[in-house]
Amino acid sequence: MIIALAQINPVIGDVAGNCRKMRTFIDRARSAGAALVVFPELAVPGYPPKDLLRKPNFIAAGVAAVEALAEDTRGGPAMLVGFACRNEQPIGRGLRNAMGLLQHGRLTDEFYKSLLPTYDVFDEHRYFEPVERAKVVDLEVGDEHIRIGITICEDLWNDKRIIERRLYHRNPMEELTQAGAEVIINASASPFAVDKGAFREQLLGGQAAAKRLPLMFVNQVGGNDELIFDGASCVFDAQGRVVSRARAFEEDLLVVDWDHLHNARRESYPDAVTSVWDALILGTRDYLDKCGFKEAVLGLSGGIDSALTACLAVEALGADRVHGIAMPSRYSSDHSVKDAEDLALNLGIDFKLIPIKEMHDVFENRLAPLFQGKPPDITEENLQARIRGNILMALSNKFGWLLLTTGNKSELAVGYCTLYGDMCGGLAVISDVPKTMVYHLARHYNVQVGREVIPDSTLTKMPSAELRPNQHDQQTLPDYDILDAILHNYIEEEESAEDIISRGFDEGVVRDVIRKVDLNEYKRKQAATGLKVTSRAFGVGRRMPIAARIS
Amino acid sequence: MIIALAQINPVIGDVAGNCRKMRTFIDRARSAGAALVVFPELAVPGYPPKDLLRKPNFIAAGVAAVEALAEDTRGGPAMLVGFACRNEQPIGRGLRNAMGLLQHGRLTDEFYKSLLPTYDVFDEHRYFEPVERAKVVDLEVGDEHIRIGITICEDLWNDKRIIERRLYHRNPMEELTQAGAEVIINASASPFAVDKGAFREQLLGGQAAAKRLPLMFVNQVGGNDELIFDGASCVFDAQGRVVSRARAFEEDLLVVDWDHLHNARRESYPDAVTSVWDALILGTRDYLDKCGFKEAVLGLSGGIDSALTACLAVEALGADRVHGIAMPSRYSSDHSVKDAEDLALNLGIDFKLIPIKEMHDVFENRLAPLFQGKPPDITEENLQARIRGNILMALSNKFGWLLLTTGNKSELAVGYCTLYGDMCGGLAVISDVPKTMVYHLARHYNVQVGREVIPDSTLTKMPSAELRPNQHDQQTLPDYDILDAILHNYIEEEESAEDIISRGFDEGVVRDVIRKVDLNEYKRKQAATGLKVTSRAFGVGRRMPIAARIS
Repeated sequence: MIIALAQINPVIGDVAGNCRKMRTFIDRARSAGAALVVFPELAVPGYPPKDLLRKPNFIAAGVAAVEALAEDTRGGPAMLVGFACRNEQPIGRGLRNAMGLLQHGRLTDEFYKSLLPTYDVFDEHRYFEPVERAKVVDLEVGDEHIRIGITICEDLWNDKRIIERRLYHRNPMEELTQAGAEVIINASASPFAVDKGAFREQLLGGQAAAKRLPLMFVNQVGGNDELIFDGASCVFDAQGRVVSRARAFEEDLLVVDWDHLHNARRESYPDAVTSVWDALILGTRDYLDKCGFKEAVLGLSGGIDSALTACLAVEALGADRVHGIAMPSRYSSDHSVKDAEDLALNLGIDFKLIPIKEMHDVFENRLAPLFQGKPPDITEENLQARIRGNILMALSNKFGWLLLTTGNKSELAVGYCTLYGDMCGGLAVISDVPKTMVYHLARHYNVQVGREVIPDSTLTKMPSAELRPNQHDQQTLPDYDILDAILHNYIEEEESAEDIISRGFDEGVVRDVIRKVDLNEYKRKQAATGLKVTSRAFGVGRRMPIAARIS
Repeated sequence: MIIALAQINPVIGDVAGNCRKMRTFIDRARSAGAALVVFPELAVPGYPPKDLLRKPNFIAAGVAAVEALAEDTRGGPAMLVGFACRNEQPIGRGLRNAMGLLQHGRLTDEFYKSLLPTYDVFDEHRYFEPVERAKVVDLEVGDEHIRIGITICEDLWNDKRIIERRLYHRNPMEELTQAGAEVIINASASPFAVDKGAFREQLLGGQAAAKRLPLMFVNQVGGNDELIFDGASCVFDAQGRVVSRARAFEEDLLVVDWDHLHNARRESYPDAVTSVWDALILGTRDYLDKCGFKEAVLGLSGGIDSALTACLAVEALGADRVHGIAMPSRYSSDHSVKDAEDLALNLGIDFKLIPIKEMHDVFENRLAPLFQGKPPDITEENLQARIRGNILMALSNKFGWLLLTTGNKSELAVGYCTLYGDMCGGLAVISDVPKTMVYHLARHYNVQVGREVIPDSTLTKMPSAELRPNQHDQQTLPDYDILDAILHNYIEEEESAEDIISRGFDEGVVRDVIRKVDLNEYKRKQAATGLKVTSRAFGVGRRMPIAARIS
């Protein structure tokens, strides 16, 4: 029997468009002789649809679209497709996270998700009622017959051998085994984080091996706001080994002939640095495409963050769709402008030089009488950043370019950035990339393209915001390798100050960093959507109070 | 028996400070001869603690604080106090939303929440495991004995007679009745929305009457980020009638002598307009206090929104802590500056005039070559708003004043506001107040203070952003009474375009308004925290995708 896993990139909310896309995959699956084609979790609305799920019309449109898709199964392959439907029970949340089985022109059965993730970026208890017991389906195709156990994403994330705390009281894999499943399907929308790909395969493979059942995992691909779905759908044999794998970070149709598994295609999954790189490109491209932007603009300071962001934008969009703007102030060094211009030249992007001196002067003069007797402080620094933000937004407004912010995760963590200044923009491309990883990615890019696109001087000079004379980041912050290690332990590992100090870090430094992280929640509240690439990003997956006193 | 309901205003995260505050209430309860004092839901961490709950040290500190509080119960009243504790079961989410019973110097029992709200602004499934069955406690004080059924907030929000869809499969009130409860306690953190107070009393009174059991409801009070808790704790008799009520919108200790209920204090709950007014003042004051700000600054345009915000700020903080800044541009009318200045004079606040003409000119000149051949559009308007934002933030940074934004809900809904311009600020005081309600509140204030604080010309002139010559809001938007009605139906009632059109609104207008609401999600993503006063505010209770195509 041939089964096709259709790893598609849906647009959130675009039921009609997503179904059109599915039909092209169905055609390809049919040509490949597939008996069944499987789409990801909530493929019809796209994942995550968030509060669009609260619109009854939207739910009805999805159900109608599924019924229309069923028409395509007359004489063609059967389909399993993810959608949201009403919970027909009178009590409980109003919706189900469902997979519909479509065959012989009809929606013949529905399968509902059992385990609803409600942590990190996930809010499924907000919308869905879990089913009480997972169920199997007997699929007959010609002479062949197979009993399939159907699971949806989180349903398999309850393996007590590798999940630290079991959140759920049930194990759908157990239920399906008892019901006589011969093969397991897992339809997912499992977002990317660095190093998660291998963990996910270990977990799914472990579930397959434990029950000695082959398993087919089909994942969504594409960027949806902060989340990037990496695809890499795969097939595990009954020993839990990956026998076939789709491409990562792009759409793919993985056709699996169960009688000739030794011939199955097995794409490689990229290494850590490459996977982050690929994720950022996909996330950036999809954000622009799905929002309807054709071009992007960003400020080029001559520093490493804006250089990396520009490279990512060019890889995502093409050089002719990216505009780089240098806006030197009286504190900018000559090499900064040169580095920015060299970068733009190397990338082949539009470059504009808009010095801010005049605007800076007129603001300062106007504010001088009000500020009399007050020493210069962060105010004067922010003023410049906000003048730049105003210029970039004027270009964005006038030409319809999406403004990309260029701040990294380390800065955003400790508030080393200006609200309404360098934080202006619609998408924060590298706001989940720690500064040390910024350097890795920048060097990776120069190596990949085989030339010095990012100028060596950008890579080697001391980081500086250049907002006052002779400023350097390390006048305010610890060395980035120390800062990033502390931040990793505090934010991603969720360790306490005491835990981190016990790892050998200086107590004063640790407490100062944590204090800064906590204090700057108000800036992050107003930050642009930032692409998530680590296990815990700022944004929707980390929900902190602002008016708080954290002891 | 005398029972005291301690309606406190905790600071999120401030375990030590919250317990200090509780001790002052315990002392008052003891002086009043109380046998039991009851605090609100999660009083120790404050509600909602959000992801602070993910910190094991924070949970441990709360538990230790509860154990220390227990010392105070030697010879004094017993206590019921809300806190978060670990779920000792090996499976399930790691925490419980608990009430601890403290008596004779010890934490003698714990009661866990059954129903966990996970909708609107609530995320309790993210943190807590529900208890399987609600339980009662036999409290003995001297010769007296009472069997109390303990519930936490949502536990009683499952009344099938008035809740449209029953979300929960259980009814804790039923369980407690079966267990022989003689009285019900409900410890809550129930946030304010206009018209919710009466609904809440109807619901709780209905639960009491259905089981013929008296019910004591103790609510949190105070502003925590967007949420404002209105207090108004109350006692229902077994017929479901309110026999005693604490004050709304301030701390209070409601002492109830069950043997002399006819003497019980019963404060009135304010009417709709007054309740919104009181809520905004409490929310503003607490946001500043809890963030550690002493003073506030805001732009005064001469229009109704900034005038109302200034009045609220003065009532919340005092006139000496509020700074009003007028920043006329070349398009500002003379009366705008005069209205702004009159308002400041009437309120007795600091007033500064900072014309933006020079800055506007220098930006325009600098951008002119880039914009050659392009007609003026929204770009030129936003430029001015962002110059003003920069000035206000410079004052905020230099003097440590919190910048208040002045935009209303109608504007924020349709994007009639400038990101990084008039949207700059730490707190959006009236961002959940529709424009029509802005007028009600403004007139209400003038009536209350008995003089024309808000100039009549501000109240009667046509609304205008004054960002281009002869601009008026209604060149872009429908009349505000129509706009607000459509917005109410779309956002708060969550109706579809078809539903709203069927109410008799013009189809073109409805579709245009909805399109604008959907398109401007990206602006709201970066908006300041806004005080919630309606049943659905923008912000944490309305989670929409940005990169989406909503059919």
